[in-house]
Amino acid sequence: MLEAIAAIKKAKNILIVTHTDPDGDAVGSMLSMYLALKSSGKKVSMYSRDQVPEIYRFLPQSDKVKHSLGKVKYDIVIAVDCGGENRVGKGIKLKTLANKVVNIDHHPDNTNFGDINVIENLSSVSEILFRLFGRMDIYITKDIAACLYAGIMTDTGNFRYDYTTAQTLDTAAFLARAGADISGIAMAVYESKTQSAVKVLGAAMYRLETSKTGKVAWTVLPQKLMDSIGAKSEDLTGIVDQIRSIKGVEVAVLFREEDDGIKVNFRSKFKVNVSDIAKKLGGGGHIRASGAILNCGLDEAKDRVLAEVFKVIK
Amino acid sequence: MLEAIAAIKKAKNILIVTHTDPDGDAVGSMLSMYLALKSSGKKVSMYSRDQVPEIYRFLPQSDKVKHSLGKVKYDIVIAVDCGGENRVGKGIKLKTLANKVVNIDHHPDNTNFGDINVIENLSSVSEILFRLFGRMDIYITKDIAACLYAGIMTDTGNFRYDYTTAQTLDTAAFLARAGADISGIAMAVYESKTQSAVKVLGAAMYRLETSKTGKVAWTVLPQKLMDSIGAKSEDLTGIVDQIRSIKGVEVAVLFREEDDGIKVNFRSKFKVNVSDIAKKLGGGGHIRASGAILNCGLDEAKDRVLAEVFKVIK
Repeated sequence: MLEAIAAIKKAKNILIVTHTDPDGDAVGSMLSMYLALKSSGKKVSMYSRDQVPEIYRFLPQSDKVKHSLGKVKYDIVIAVDCGGENRVGKGIKLKTLANKVVNIDHHPDNTNFGDINVIENLSSVSEILFRLFGRMDIYITKDIAACLYAGIMTDTGNFRYDYTTAQTLDTAAFLARAGADISGIAMAVYESKTQSAVKVLGAAMYRLETSKTGKVAWTVLPQKLMDSIGAKSEDLTGIVDQIRSIKGVEVAVLFREEDDGIKVNFRSKFKVNVSDIAKKLGGGGHIRASGAILNCGLDEAKDRVLAEVFKVIK
Repeated sequence: MLEAIAAIKKAKNILIVTHTDPDGDAVGSMLSMYLALKSSGKKVSMYSRDQVPEIYRFLPQSDKVKHSLGKVKYDIVIAVDCGGENRVGKGIKLKTLANKVVNIDHHPDNTNFGDINVIENLSSVSEILFRLFGRMDIYITKDIAACLYAGIMTDTGNFRYDYTTAQTLDTAAFLARAGADISGIAMAVYESKTQSAVKVLGAAMYRLETSKTGKVAWTVLPQKLMDSIGAKSEDLTGIVDQIRSIKGVEVAVLFREEDDGIKVNFRSKFKVNVSDIAKKLGGGGHIRASGAILNCGLDEAKDRVLAEVFKVIK
């Protein structure tokens, strides 16, 4: 962490990037880093290939995120929440953008693609940044607190997942005292579902399939169905978690047809390492939450994925 | 609080009661009080009219809860999480059970039915008890921590509702350090949904109705539908919250036909005081979460309830 701090302190012109389809921790950590560096007098830009999802647009400075990369060469580029360089976007080479690449992440399978790598096994990148900002003597403003809180809250599933620690809760309490509006942030993120999100959840539950034992459960969402509901990719947030929440289900899988292939999301409850399963399919992630993209048809994807799952659990 | 502590310290034979259809805070606060008093050498019994829901049966001593009241006269009876005496069960007079009634609750509309009333505006009775136990010098064992954590977690909707404070998070962190298994408790409570719970959620979403503006949304669950799915009352937990979570919805209402009448649950998002609406219908609760039971048919209940809601918001 000290090496990263030294590099950040030295840099004048900084680019922050995060992963495609940004989630709450990607957005929260990127924005809080932006605010922190701005407050230190740096020139800072932010890049995300995809739009900031609507539910996170209430966060300060979220409108400053750019979706194209210019020709500027930065002193450093900081990647947050990216397990690998490819997570920033296909074909992007961070080394061509800056003199130094700083990789700050909490995915245990991070590829260490940076010149400096800060990989810590914490709940979220936002929790790592909270510690980093502390060491950098950055004052946690209300805005920084809101961004970090949003990141921690979403990546822990509201302090539910098993990497939530007493220190995570301490951090959340600190951020609340620093001005993060706990219930306001939760409302904005969780209580702003679109009618289409609710409908697609209903459809997903209706179409649920399970293995004979009920230990594996999955749902397939073809593009046609998504179109008929008018559902977007971001409407699918939480569906795979809902599948896992069924009693007896150990592995939950969501298949969805998208432009760039069949996206597959995995969740496990207690035992199965779904990061290993995702890796075999060219993806990655965490032990209990992972994903992969398959370049084939929906039926083939389903067969290939379930075959891998059934090798571990039936 | 000091008066309550004095009464508890003096008593030898204590009964703890909670409300019908007990939720996580009802169960968590009752069990933690039981464990705390047992550790102080008291003779303690617990009563709940209804069964402890399956999702809370992993909590220590939950099998010790009785569902009938004997002829024993106790030194004191402690009611936890009961806004009024009637919440313990129809026709139960706590004064006939004990010499003194201690009423510990966090509902702002509590009727002060006790000889001693400890009504604090905190997230949950479990949070009140954490402070009470601190003042009583009761050592927070791993078991007590688990019960209190379950109560706080469920009553705050995972630290989401607007009475969640930095102190609530401090308390949660303390309980985690005292041995409460954060993710294990969350898994047990939230990831043990029955297939029928998932199906009834799907049906509820499918049957969703809204006012013209989309500000009021409701769903009606007739007994016939519940029977066809094989759904029980406890399968309905969280459905009204899901309705509220739709963008633009300010008031969510769930109607369900049950043996003792039409149960109505209200949730509001930002503005509407649904406690006031529930009171007009003979019920009660909090500003953002309340309920009532109507002794009439489903259609009449729907008309009467929506008429009250539409007086406030359309």
